[in-house]
Amino acid sequence: MKPIAYIHTDFPTKFGIPRQSGIVEELKAYIVFEEEYRDREAFRGLDEFSHIWIIWEFSQNKDKKWSPTVRPPKLGGNVRKGVFATRSPFRPNPVGLSCVKLENIEYNKSKGPILHISGADLMNNTPIYDIKPYLAYVDSKPDATGGFTDGIIHKEYDVIFENECNGILPLEKEIALIKVLKQDPRPSYQDDNRVYGMEFGKWEIGFTILEEKIYIKRIEEK
Amino acid sequence: MKPIAYIHTDFPTKFGIPRQSGIVEELKAYIVFEEEYRDREAFRGLDEFSHIWIIWEFSQNKDKKWSPTVRPPKLGGNVRKGVFATRSPFRPNPVGLSCVKLENIEYNKSKGPILHISGADLMNNTPIYDIKPYLAYVDSKPDATGGFTDGIIHKEYDVIFENECNGILPLEKEIALIKVLKQDPRPSYQDDNRVYGMEFGKWEIGFTILEEKIYIKRIEEK
Repeated sequence: MKPIAYIHTDFPTKFGIPRQSGIVEELKAYIVFEEEYRDREAFRGLDEFSHIWIIWEFSQNKDKKWSPTVRPPKLGGNVRKGVFATRSPFRPNPVGLSCVKLENIEYNKSKGPILHISGADLMNNTPIYDIKPYLAYVDSKPDATGGFTDGIIHKEYDVIFENECNGILPLEKEIALIKVLKQDPRPSYQDDNRVYGMEFGKWEIGFTILEEKIYIKRIEEK
Repeated sequence: MKPIAYIHTDFPTKFGIPRQSGIVEELKAYIVFEEEYRDREAFRGLDEFSHIWIIWEFSQNKDKKWSPTVRPPKLGGNVRKGVFATRSPFRPNPVGLSCVKLENIEYNKSKGPILHISGADLMNNTPIYDIKPYLAYVDSKPDATGGFTDGIIHKEYDVIFENECNGILPLEKEIALIKVLKQDPRPSYQDDNRVYGMEFGKWEIGFTILEEKIYIKRIEEK
């Protein structure tokens, strides 16, 4: 297994990445293939698909030892589940699976074909092992039961821009940032009122959470 | 990446394997983990899920060179598509993705936990890299458009048992075999009337196809 491509996203670090793919559709990203795979023939017909699978490497965790149980952040971080009952990155083989929307394929760039996608939950520069089309007739199981993730009430936080933080980001990035923060990116639902720093694209975002509201304190270009 | 488990299915060879997972739900299979992963803690909570993902190795094809285009059997074998627009096994990294039903987990066998599943499209003894729960809220996209696989009319063949072939297989295997043959397992929709031999579990099946009907000519225990 060797990387065939790398993804470019707005997350230079793990902090803030949505916990599954497709949750924040507003997040745009693109995939650039290694030279050997820059052949438009290898993508013939792919643009007819609305969604694709990405199989990728949890490159930040690949040297960590796996543990039989993990604490899913969705369960508050204090309940243990078996690693194979979760999508945790700390697995025997550090391989991730994400379904994303395929927006378009750019063929005529020097590094093309480049895949433009949305909804990715990957860190910038994550190595990619494979791209497969999403086939609704086999992959879509709307009635599949979801175990402990069923019945979790998904809380969304209000996001408030303070200190003239409004309008610093391009509109598209601002909307994506709001959607990211609404999910509460803090590890294991920590509950304190310190100011968290999160890197997002070329910006450093400072925010704090108080009574289920998120206040953006600063946005600075790095 | 190293195998964490191996699957046991009724397909000793590639011939006859359904072309996607979930198409023949009647096919039962089971997954036995390598010793290092035989820890029931690693599976805690998995039995609450109805479906799981298997990420596995196309072990039969791993030494073959990939080619930018392939001819999907669903398109009759004479139309070329880009390898990334298909689920073809001949890919830059020989990695497969299948969604299967999780029937139950057997904990108390010497090699347990053993996962009993149905609907697998894998050859016997295929190495498995990872097991993940199917999360309907992110993985199920019923409205995803399927490119060239949309609109293919799925023909099913009648299956007729000749020469007292009826009743040789246990009922469960007989039903699964009928469903497998209905899909027409011939490569690239070949159209001739020779007798095909297919290994299925411990049996050798001989069948022929005439005017969209499949005739089972012999079933012999190996």
